[in-house]
Amino acid sequence: MITTIGFDADDTLWHNETIFASMHERLRELLAEYHEGAVVERALFATEMRNLDRYGYGIKSFALSAIETALELSGGQLRGEEVRQIVQLAHEMLDHPVEVLPGVRETVETVAPTHRLLLITKGDLRDQERKVEKSGLAERFHAVEIVSEKDVRSYDRILRRHAVPPAEFLMVGNSIRSDILPVLKLGGHAAHVPYPLTWEHERVDTPPDGPRFHVLGGLAELPALLERLG
Amino acid sequence: MITTIGFDADDTLWHNETIFASMHERLRELLAEYHEGAVVERALFATEMRNLDRYGYGIKSFALSAIETALELSGGQLRGEEVRQIVQLAHEMLDHPVEVLPGVRETVETVAPTHRLLLITKGDLRDQERKVEKSGLAERFHAVEIVSEKDVRSYDRILRRHAVPPAEFLMVGNSIRSDILPVLKLGGHAAHVPYPLTWEHERVDTPPDGPRFHVLGGLAELPALLERLG
Repeated sequence: MITTIGFDADDTLWHNETIFASMHERLRELLAEYHEGAVVERALFATEMRNLDRYGYGIKSFALSAIETALELSGGQLRGEEVRQIVQLAHEMLDHPVEVLPGVRETVETVAPTHRLLLITKGDLRDQERKVEKSGLAERFHAVEIVSEKDVRSYDRILRRHAVPPAEFLMVGNSIRSDILPVLKLGGHAAHVPYPLTWEHERVDTPPDGPRFHVLGGLAELPALLERLG
Repeated sequence: MITTIGFDADDTLWHNETIFASMHERLRELLAEYHEGAVVERALFATEMRNLDRYGYGIKSFALSAIETALELSGGQLRGEEVRQIVQLAHEMLDHPVEVLPGVRETVETVAPTHRLLLITKGDLRDQERKVEKSGLAERFHAVEIVSEKDVRSYDRILRRHAVPPAEFLMVGNSIRSDILPVLKLGGHAAHVPYPLTWEHERVDTPPDGPRFHVLGGLAELPALLERLG
């Protein structure tokens, strides 16, 4: 019997990776005079991974890593105007409207009266709070939990804080790595709702399986899954 | 009767503003060829305030605002090497060891057996978690609450979450604006432990007063205050 549902936010409730993808494209154009696009992407990902422990996730981390990558790839020849454009990209991302995914509002309305809903997201505190507010969904959630990493330890802390036995918990999200695997490991249920784009860092080689793992074609299929789970 | 004590972190449990001050100094040196120090400081503060809602607090926000300020003050002539040095400053700040303030460890050990301790800090999620871990104090705290802004609303949420009546709560911190005023407004007790440096944004014109406001010369005076409060 599922009593509590955890929702991932970025790319589960609203678009996120598409915004990053368009910013990557503009960064590749900006640095095209120094290197071809594939080199820019590889260097940016390497910088982001090198800085991950220090910076954590989010747009400000992306911006600082993009500036560092641009400095590297230009051999230190980067011009002020190019730096300004990268800062400008970050501002646009942070000021971007929140585009709630199709079916999300209806699904959240449908399940809210019968289940306790938690919003569980990682990344930048201020930016995630801003998106929750702008989404208009905040009031449907019992609590918003913003963590620096979605791993077994952070899910365990959240479930204890809300006194939810893992067997009564279902996590819904687009990232196998962050939304599915740690929750299955804790003994909870997890429903994967794929998003068309996945950041390289979130990709996993071996898909999960087992009776507590579920795949949904879209969030609109959630009420049917809850009925099946009883 | 105080049952729960909230501790601010930066400049209350460990040094922080001194690290920022030395980074400001290096930024002024770096930009000395463009403008004198006072102009750099004014421009940086203005940029930080303009970006506050978008970026929130913390070192990554500081770094991005410093880069933006440097671009402005150099009239766009900023060189790649100067940008690299600002990114380097941010890395040094994020990698900086945590220097626990004198008397903190002893005081926390003294009050932990008789009170529930919460660590309540604002700023960057990843960076604050890192400092809590590195401080060696994490285990003494019942919970660590990292918020994007310390205002009446966020304290109210924290006290409700931990089911603490405001009259039983004492907040201890160095910022009148963030640690004292909102807690007094909620009906709680607040103890001000001044730190030698205060960021301009945290300064207030009118000091608080009233029977629930206390001033400590150092954290070591906390046990005596708790005895007086009964």
